[in-house]
Amino acid sequence: MQKDRFSQQLEFILELDKLKNIRRQTLVLHEDRAENDAEHSFHLAVMACILAEHAREEIDVLHVMKMVLMHDVVEIDAGDTYCYDEAGNQTKAEREQKAADRIFALLPEEQEKEYRGLWEEFEARETPESKFANALDRIHPMLLNYAKGGISWKKHGIHVSQAEARNCGITDAGSERIGKLAKEIIEAGRAAGMLLED
Amino acid sequence: MQKDRFSQQLEFILELDKLKNIRRQTLVLHEDRAENDAEHSFHLAVMACILAEHAREEIDVLHVMKMVLMHDVVEIDAGDTYCYDEAGNQTKAEREQKAADRIFALLPEEQEKEYRGLWEEFEARETPESKFANALDRIHPMLLNYAKGGISWKKHGIHVSQAEARNCGITDAGSERIGKLAKEIIEAGRAAGMLLED
Repeated sequence: MQKDRFSQQLEFILELDKLKNIRRQTLVLHEDRAENDAEHSFHLAVMACILAEHAREEIDVLHVMKMVLMHDVVEIDAGDTYCYDEAGNQTKAEREQKAADRIFALLPEEQEKEYRGLWEEFEARETPESKFANALDRIHPMLLNYAKGGISWKKHGIHVSQAEARNCGITDAGSERIGKLAKEIIEAGRAAGMLLED
Repeated sequence: MQKDRFSQQLEFILELDKLKNIRRQTLVLHEDRAENDAEHSFHLAVMACILAEHAREEIDVLHVMKMVLMHDVVEIDAGDTYCYDEAGNQTKAEREQKAADRIFALLPEEQEKEYRGLWEEFEARETPESKFANALDRIHPMLLNYAKGGISWKKHGIHVSQAEARNCGITDAGSERIGKLAKEIIEAGRAAGMLLED
């Protein structure tokens, strides 16, 4: 039997509850536990509206907010791949495409197209909204990780050059101010011994 | 020394990390643990965009999304007051006003006004956006609680009339379809023995 539109929407919404179970490498600030994808996406949505004025180009804030809410949905099936995990990142794209096929298809057809499109737009980093959303996605774990004494950098033995390569270009492409902050955090992390010298 | 605008914004954003530590009565669907305010707010923001078409009146979706992200910020200081806790609810308003005074004041002045205003608008339930946001805030724990076998209703011995009084009018004011869903969930909860007969 064909589900009605409202039931399809509810099923997608309840499916996204699983983002509360996907743990990231970043810790939350005031407890000794990993942040999950729902918390991370919440925080990015807050940043999208509070920091919108710092975007490098004019942006549609609603579009950015929807995009950051959707940007990690594929991790429900594909899991969180640590950004410095080279092997994991080789298979990431295929795993995530399959996940997108399944999860966004829970929605009514035109919403599937819209929300899957937001995820693809985020991944492509071509539009002003996507560039800004990606800048937020990069700076957020840096902010938390630096505030927690660089714990995930230390755990994985990350070098200054790795942190720079991963974060500086992408933050700067979305926001000059956030790009500057990324450089400041890396320099402070280097000076405090949180990141390894090259 | 006066902090610069960007630093004030970052301080507010990092303050909101504490929402990840505020536990609610509702459990997440796929683990045996309480949901926190950041996860709840994430889920409401998703619902706001996916379900926007069901609002009773025309709404500004961005306005609703910002509102739901801010609606529980005061609980950082005031804590989560269980909705059926009568004593706690008598002191809730004063505790939450004090919290709003402190937390929104971290922002630059015009953003303080905007975001505190969103919280006050949510509380007043007068505008179309606020009515819709409140409908989401009521239906969300019902959806999760029903999917978890009515665990928090059973724990607190909630009666059908209490669930109706708390949820039916407010969901219906924001959305006819969501109001109907609230009634359906209460009836199904009654039939399954999750809610007590009056």
